[in-house]
Amino acid sequence: MRDGTLGVAVIGTGRMGSDHVRRIDEVISGARVAAVVDLDGERAKGVAALVDGCAAYTDPAAAMAADDVDAVIIASPGPAHEAALLEAFARDLPVLCEKPLTPDAASALRVVEAETRLGHRRVQVGFMRRFDAEFGQLKAVLDGGGLGRTLMLHCTHRNASTPPGFTSRMTINDSVVHEADVTRWLLGQEITAVTVLRPAPSAAAPEGLSDPQLVLFETSGGAVVDVEIFVNCGFGYQVRCEAVGEHGTARAGDAHGLYVNAAGRWGGEIAQDYVVRFKDAYDREVQAWVDATRRGGVIGPSAWDGYAAAAVCEAGVRAQESGGRTAVTLAERPDLYRAADRS
Amino acid sequence: MRDGTLGVAVIGTGRMGSDHVRRIDEVISGARVAAVVDLDGERAKGVAALVDGCAAYTDPAAAMAADDVDAVIIASPGPAHEAALLEAFARDLPVLCEKPLTPDAASALRVVEAETRLGHRRVQVGFMRRFDAEFGQLKAVLDGGGLGRTLMLHCTHRNASTPPGFTSRMTINDSVVHEADVTRWLLGQEITAVTVLRPAPSAAAPEGLSDPQLVLFETSGGAVVDVEIFVNCGFGYQVRCEAVGEHGTARAGDAHGLYVNAAGRWGGEIAQDYVVRFKDAYDREVQAWVDATRRGGVIGPSAWDGYAAAAVCEAGVRAQESGGRTAVTLAERPDLYRAADRS
Amino acid sequence: MRDGTLGVAVIGTGRMGSDHVRRIDEVISGARVAAVVDLDGERAKGVAALVDGCAAYTDPAAAMAADDVDAVIIASPGPAHEAALLEAFARDLPVLCEKPLTPDAASALRVVEAETRLGHRRVQVGFMRRFDAEFGQLKAVLDGGGLGRTLMLHCTHRNASTPPGFTSRMTINDSVVHEADVTRWLLGQEITAVTVLRPAPSAAAPEGLSDPQLVLFETSGGAVVDVEIFVNCGFGYQVRCEAVGEHGTARAGDAHGLYVNAAGRWGGEIAQDYVVRFKDAYDREVQAWVDATRRGGVIGPSAWDGYAAAAVCEAGVRAQESGGRTAVTLAERPDLYRAADRS
Amino acid sequence: MRDGTLGVAVIGTGRMGSDHVRRIDEVISGARVAAVVDLDGERAKGVAALVDGCAAYTDPAAAMAADDVDAVIIASPGPAHEAALLEAFARDLPVLCEKPLTPDAASALRVVEAETRLGHRRVQVGFMRRFDAEFGQLKAVLDGGGLGRTLMLHCTHRNASTPPGFTSRMTINDSVVHEADVTRWLLGQEITAVTVLRPAPSAAAPEGLSDPQLVLFETSGGAVVDVEIFVNCGFGYQVRCEAVGEHGTARAGDAHGLYVNAAGRWGGEIAQDYVVRFKDAYDREVQAWVDATRRGGVIGPSAWDGYAAAAVCEAGVRAQESGGRTAVTLAERPDLYRAADRS
Repeated sequence: MRDGTLGVAVIGTGRMGSDHVRRIDEVISGARVAAVVDLDGERAKGVAALVDGCAAYTDPAAAMAADDVDAVIIASPGPAHEAALLEAFARDLPVLCEKPLTPDAASALRVVEAETRLGHRRVQVGFMRRFDAEFGQLKAVLDGGGLGRTLMLHCTHRNASTPPGFTSRMTINDSVVHEADVTRWLLGQEITAVTVLRPAPSAAAPEGLSDPQLVLFETSGGAVVDVEIFVNCGFGYQVRCEAVGEHGTARAGDAHGLYVNAAGRWGGEIAQDYVVRFKDAYDREVQAWVDATRRGGVIGPSAWDGYAAAAVCEAGVRAQESGGRTAVTLAERPDLYRAADRS
Repeated sequence: MRDGTLGVAVIGTGRMGSDHVRRIDEVISGARVAAVVDLDGERAKGVAALVDGCAAYTDPAAAMAADDVDAVIIASPGPAHEAALLEAFARDLPVLCEKPLTPDAASALRVVEAETRLGHRRVQVGFMRRFDAEFGQLKAVLDGGGLGRTLMLHCTHRNASTPPGFTSRMTINDSVVHEADVTRWLLGQEITAVTVLRPAPSAAAPEGLSDPQLVLFETSGGAVVDVEIFVNCGFGYQVRCEAVGEHGTARAGDAHGLYVNAAGRWGGEIAQDYVVRFKDAYDREVQAWVDATRRGGVIGPSAWDGYAAAAVCEAGVRAQESGGRTAVTLAERPDLYRAADRS
Repeated sequence: MRDGTLGVAVIGTGRMGSDHVRRIDEVISGARVAAVVDLDGERAKGVAALVDGCAAYTDPAAAMAADDVDAVIIASPGPAHEAALLEAFARDLPVLCEKPLTPDAASALRVVEAETRLGHRRVQVGFMRRFDAEFGQLKAVLDGGGLGRTLMLHCTHRNASTPPGFTSRMTINDSVVHEADVTRWLLGQEITAVTVLRPAPSAAAPEGLSDPQLVLFETSGGAVVDVEIFVNCGFGYQVRCEAVGEHGTARAGDAHGLYVNAAGRWGGEIAQDYVVRFKDAYDREVQAWVDATRRGGVIGPSAWDGYAAAAVCEAGVRAQESGGRTAVTLAERPDLYRAADRS
Repeated sequence: MRDGTLGVAVIGTGRMGSDHVRRIDEVISGARVAAVVDLDGERAKGVAALVDGCAAYTDPAAAMAADDVDAVIIASPGPAHEAALLEAFARDLPVLCEKPLTPDAASALRVVEAETRLGHRRVQVGFMRRFDAEFGQLKAVLDGGGLGRTLMLHCTHRNASTPPGFTSRMTINDSVVHEADVTRWLLGQEITAVTVLRPAPSAAAPEGLSDPQLVLFETSGGAVVDVEIFVNCGFGYQVRCEAVGEHGTARAGDAHGLYVNAAGRWGGEIAQDYVVRFKDAYDREVQAWVDATRRGGVIGPSAWDGYAAAAVCEAGVRAQESGGRTAVTLAERPDLYRAADRS
């Protein structure tokens, strides 16, 4: 590291990659954007030009080979993740990999095996909810034990609307994947089965999209989780999770903020977008990754977490298609991932 | 009616029957308790002695035959309901029958058939949530159409603890029966299938009781309903229902009332009991029944509603035992119940 | 009482009087409207015609003289109250007198003196907030002592808009009079001084009306109370009171009820009217008066409470005009009112 | 600036100074702690040792003279601020000065005059609430105009307890000074008069401390502001502000976060400390200062804001002692501060 500042290569300059570039440049302490990578070289140059001393690349491997690159953020499309991860392992570079780790369980397992061969963790997966303040409080309350063992989770995950081309399968892979991770993280258990109920769809849903759906998880510890996924709810972006323990319940994600009385109503505004709702979580996620990396450590969701989420999503898509209960099968968990980091 | 005041016979003087005696005596306008009935004659006399001009009986038929009895409230144990209802039909007396209408679908159907033969409605079933102010607002919002078609309901039904002898089957028949009625009432649809998921039970649940459980309803209009039933939640009595429409959601049952800052916490008290939580609903239910009866009409949940709820509960108990999805089968709906009263 | 049912004469058939007629006829247990009185005889007859066995009068004294009149509700304009009260005292009839007891402190004191000569309490004054469920909880929490001594109250009192002819003086006499009573009731102390601050008025306020205003009370126990009175707030009717104790605070009157997510906002509806907001309080107030009267007792706010509120309002109007702090002076409290009923 | 990174000298290493050192080191992007200053040289060395490349000083002027110091944070005791500010002006260094600007209006005016002679703004005063997310939303709503002109503010400012030696005068100078700034900022008006009401103090207040108090501001635009200041409320740290506009109200500071049902109560935790409650506001304040400084600009509360707050506090202390209404007198506002920055 130059002057103790982490030089980061950001791979992918789409919405999330560009936002990470801005974040590291303007918000994050102790890191700088050393390189940006995009298959579209002009786009890469355009983003690089906004940051002092930032180089543009079209090849991830070339960026990782640069002298001033100490760590990598992968924000390219999912199918490109595996190759970038293996390249980073080859150079033993720390990685913050946006979710999904890879697009399917088989490839995610290959990443887990490769990191296992490397012998130490290098990957933090971008499940940013673990860094949301309220979700963190929820985790702390559950771990504190005052509510007893957690028996159920009730989750809601609502988006105002979907972009063109959004499919039922994506509701599992892109949306419910967050609840899969939250469930595993809050409970410290694996998900063992998935069922998907599909109500008659909303007239506001595009033709062919099942929306909303009710997704049910069962876990290795006997907990049951229900998830409302509704990606064309119309009124905003809303993520809530209520944990039901033996002695009480705790809920994260209630709308709050400025409270207004006007025009015959009390209440407030709903965030319209995950970028707004989870802005602080993204900031904290990246800062935590930079901090851990500068100290030589790895925290946060692991490649195993990424693999397990992928396996749950594969079962979820099959459950969605069959209408029945679908078991989740996982490979054996390598020792490397046994002392689970819970941050 | 003497002086325009409805003379009511209250059959059964357990917790609910006694409460109705007190309610009619002290709270309700236009009615008086003319008779109380209990198999235990001493108990009947004790309750009757508290009310001016109230006679005590051990036989429901004798009470119904009394000159000053114009209407009947049935609050005896469920197995005694059918005989009392048929007796009331024989005398063409209006009845407010506490839920369940009868303990099973077959007997409930016999009641439906008897009332159908009578040719006009005489029974209001005691699903009191329909008279709760917030549930009424929820119904009005859904019927108003501003939220679009209702796609899902999320329900929670929590009791602090169960009395001795409470069984898993009773969680369906005595507790979830309310959500069965609320679902049918809010949506104006029949329930077509039930599934029950049973998490590993709470350590606070008595041996052998599945607690909590997640009950899933599917409806004739394609809606999906999830119900958390948790009868030993420890912290209080809490009933909530969130309806998810195409354009928004509406939720009844949030805790509110006095808001206190003290000892490092903000918040308020949770009602400990359904008698407290639904006190106003019971008052409004009985007043509405008295008012309609004095006008010569019948409103509220019908015998058909009682029968349909019983059929859902039977399917629910089978679903609980099998772990699988269980279809609900209903007899054909008599014309008498077609112009559904929605109050 | 005929058949144990209280025969009530309702004097005045304006908005509040008519509402009391309907309430006693349809809602209240154990009472009936025996007579209605209005200077406008046609109006009286019209209202009486709606109730079985109800007579119409133009003279309060004639109505009170009727055989089947056991008690009186005074809902006529304030200037008519004193004569009606004295007539009721002459006949020793129980009275529920709408606020104000009388329009000024001198006449209110004459009523106090007359009732004192009578030797027993006959009057309950219509400060209905004492019968609101949340205000009752607030009183119970303060009396319970868990929050320590009450040091301050923060009150807000907002109306959507004013009827034509509403004056600044009426904001004190008709609106803030409720906070004067609530303060005295919650704290069990007299108000000793009033100050009124008048911000630059809202453009929505009619010409010449000071709106909003901040009214400050000091009490005999050293507490300080601030009251926002804003009678053209535009968005609804909203009454809140936060008590600040030595160990915590408690607040009544937060908006609640059905919670809706729609159109980018969370929240709910605000009541538009005191008749809606305090409907249950009015019902409970009248039922409590009927119940106490049938038992031969008197509860609730006394003539002394009505007098003290009038004295506070007189000081308030002077404070409003002078801009300065104005002391409240009270006559000596007769023994009759020493054992203050706190209901 | 070395490598575009702002080298900051932090003067004072008490609670706030140490926290700023940690913040710049760990949280803030684009700045580093180049120097720390404390009269206690050992303490300065101890703090400096925690940060790479940070020098320790006992003399502010020496620190400001260092080559790698580009800007200054003043977090020393208030009486030391004037000298440090004048030294920074002499070197034309940007300053973030913790509140109070100086301990009294006369010295604050000298700072204003010195900066005016310098000819450009160099000082941002540490009123961090302007950087709190909810207060920012409140400001945006008021400036947006949808609620009309702001007529009143209701503020509460509660601390769990006071440290030894806390005086009534400090409740104005150290606590209410924040509401003075918030009032001026939200309304864009000067405070013209102050009144202080002192209820009988809480038994939990140390001997001799007036606690709670009600402070009233009147503003140049005719608004009225009430502030409950209660520094031994016992239950936590709570800051709220409700703005009353012509068409509605908006409130910042309601407790929120994780919502828990347990032990018969609903609700959540109250922050115990301003460091916790306003953590994000401090982070945003310092980041905004660093960002503006790197761009060569100045934003946020100005020296004039610091002076005006000092003048209000002086009037407040006199009002506290006299019990009467005390006018605030201000010097003429220099042109330098006319185009008020509103961030």
